[in-house]
Amino acid sequence: MSIKSRAAVAFAANEPLQIVEVDVEAPKKGEVLVRIVATGVCHTDAFTLSGDDPEGIFPSILGHEGGGIVEAIGEGVTSLEVGDHVIPLYTAECRECKFCKSGKTNLCQAIRATQGKGLMPDGTTRFSYKGQPIYHYMGTSTFSEYTVVPEISLAKIPKEAPLDKVCLLGCGVTTGIGAVLNTAKVEEGASVAIFGLGGIGLAAIIGAKMAKASRIIVIDINPAKFEIAKELGATDFVNPKDYDEPIQDVIVELTDGGVDYSFECVGNVKLMRAALECCHKGWGESVIIGVAGAGQEISTRPFQLVTGRVWRGSAFGGVKGRTELPSYVNKAQKGEIPLDTFITHNMPLEDINKAFDLMHEGKSIRTVIHF
Amino acid sequence: MSIKSRAAVAFAANEPLQIVEVDVEAPKKGEVLVRIVATGVCHTDAFTLSGDDPEGIFPSILGHEGGGIVEAIGEGVTSLEVGDHVIPLYTAECRECKFCKSGKTNLCQAIRATQGKGLMPDGTTRFSYKGQPIYHYMGTSTFSEYTVVPEISLAKIPKEAPLDKVCLLGCGVTTGIGAVLNTAKVEEGASVAIFGLGGIGLAAIIGAKMAKASRIIVIDINPAKFEIAKELGATDFVNPKDYDEPIQDVIVELTDGGVDYSFECVGNVKLMRAALECCHKGWGESVIIGVAGAGQEISTRPFQLVTGRVWRGSAFGGVKGRTELPSYVNKAQKGEIPLDTFITHNMPLEDINKAFDLMHEGKSIRTVIHF
Repeated sequence: MSIKSRAAVAFAANEPLQIVEVDVEAPKKGEVLVRIVATGVCHTDAFTLSGDDPEGIFPSILGHEGGGIVEAIGEGVTSLEVGDHVIPLYTAECRECKFCKSGKTNLCQAIRATQGKGLMPDGTTRFSYKGQPIYHYMGTSTFSEYTVVPEISLAKIPKEAPLDKVCLLGCGVTTGIGAVLNTAKVEEGASVAIFGLGGIGLAAIIGAKMAKASRIIVIDINPAKFEIAKELGATDFVNPKDYDEPIQDVIVELTDGGVDYSFECVGNVKLMRAALECCHKGWGESVIIGVAGAGQEISTRPFQLVTGRVWRGSAFGGVKGRTELPSYVNKAQKGEIPLDTFITHNMPLEDINKAFDLMHEGKSIRTVIHF
Repeated sequence: MSIKSRAAVAFAANEPLQIVEVDVEAPKKGEVLVRIVATGVCHTDAFTLSGDDPEGIFPSILGHEGGGIVEAIGEGVTSLEVGDHVIPLYTAECRECKFCKSGKTNLCQAIRATQGKGLMPDGTTRFSYKGQPIYHYMGTSTFSEYTVVPEISLAKIPKEAPLDKVCLLGCGVTTGIGAVLNTAKVEEGASVAIFGLGGIGLAAIIGAKMAKASRIIVIDINPAKFEIAKELGATDFVNPKDYDEPIQDVIVELTDGGVDYSFECVGNVKLMRAALECCHKGWGESVIIGVAGAGQEISTRPFQLVTGRVWRGSAFGGVKGRTELPSYVNKAQKGEIPLDTFITHNMPLEDINKAFDLMHEGKSIRTVIHF
């Protein structure tokens, strides 16, 4: 038994997505059929589509920033029922693996192996097109009107929350806020530097503001982004193009020794180094959020660490999706997370390639695709 | 006014020390004249003597692991009096600078600039030989019977403690234990990997044992060190020469995913990478203690951090010398820190070059020089 679903399929790397009607099989044991109402388009989708992602698999259905409604549940599903509103999670939360139980990380490994291969936990795919298998992506595949997602990869959220806005909490916004609050644990009065003002960087500003950071320095080579950053609470604006010296030196000088916390939100290994080295000697902590290209490496002199700086990373903001995401939705509902600021464009699925173009041209923060 | 002092002077890089009689000026404001009773010889002394240390200055009096007795105090010194027993600190503790007050680091910066130049805080040196200035080293210069040290760089210790043993707490032993307890904050039941079984690595074993780590894996290419490591509490012994695969892979396999904490105690940037990468995904933390050669850099894929590993460093074990060192001395007095295990050789100042030879040949852990 299968249903038809409109979907934007990535048939091959570096080619436009094609809007076609795919077949979606019914959810199996522990799986849920979700009707996607809206989905954001994120740089990670573009990264995979570009062919630079060594783990990219084609043909596949991309998309990992969605909001939807449970349409059917498979055998053994107990935490969700038909009609529930959900946000698909690319980081599952099984609550049973060593990682979930550690209390130290959100990186559930229960279905990591199959997810990385574009498959459901049983090792097969639910998507096909003209009889040929189409692979899943990040366990979510939200660029399809109907998608199948494991129960442990769905956060149940209040039905009052508008899915075409809170879908953004499925990736970038939560990642940026969580990196500040969960990973770095920025404290009141701290100084913060945020490298890169895409969706994650802007969200990190919100997180820093929530943490009551005293100084929020943003760094971007596109000064057009500074206005919105200011709206969100940034206090200092640095365009590396305005300086001859390394940007870490500029920030160290600006802050009389460096910042307490820094966040790399781009995926550029040179910026990751700068972000570390602009941290204050003795205690500054730098968090890598951006995803670098295949094979790229970070480097620095070990002296940077021996003199007290700390180098960390963050995935999905250290947020446990099923447990914590509902509280992010609540915050958005109360206006504490201004999602509207992120949504620069809305369009139907048919126009999804335009959303990628806008992103590549730096003209959008987030485009929300409506089904 | 000056006094004569026997001292081992490093007149030039990569030449044996020369035992001569130097002139030591009286302590100035905020300074203390200390009669050194005994001093350890540490790899850092050898590193500077080799000429590889970019901050090495000659001619100078090396030595930074000493124990002594206050012989005279300069103007304004209030926390010490003649006859007090002290351990000189290469990391001062002024209790007034931004760093001391931060509660986040032991890296007092009050006299860092002058100390790095081989000078006392007023910008001059107290040592001379035949009228030519001799520079200080690390603010301590313990290879001299008499040395002048700032008051803020002296930890006062109980008179009952044998100076020719607790002098080792002035560097290596405290560094290794402190890195485990203060920097990594290893918790009960954790697994630990220690790279390199010199004085610091062996001390890290003691720290891990104090923290009640469940598994203490030690890594060294000299299996002769494993016996003493076992005595101190190590549970697993890995000689990289026994394996073809990268040593981080060996440890990840040995521990079903990696260790909770790792410590690099060598100063080798490749080992620093291995130490990070043998940490458990999601929460493993690696601490760099070893000092790398000038210009050398650490590197790794940022994915290592994004998937939850943390990269830190530690200097003097994160220990605030004046405040915390007395408690280390107490622990040594109670037998909780078996200093005797570290002292493989004792000799008079006149034989100090032999101590360097023994160290280079890997035949000693610590040689204590007696004045």
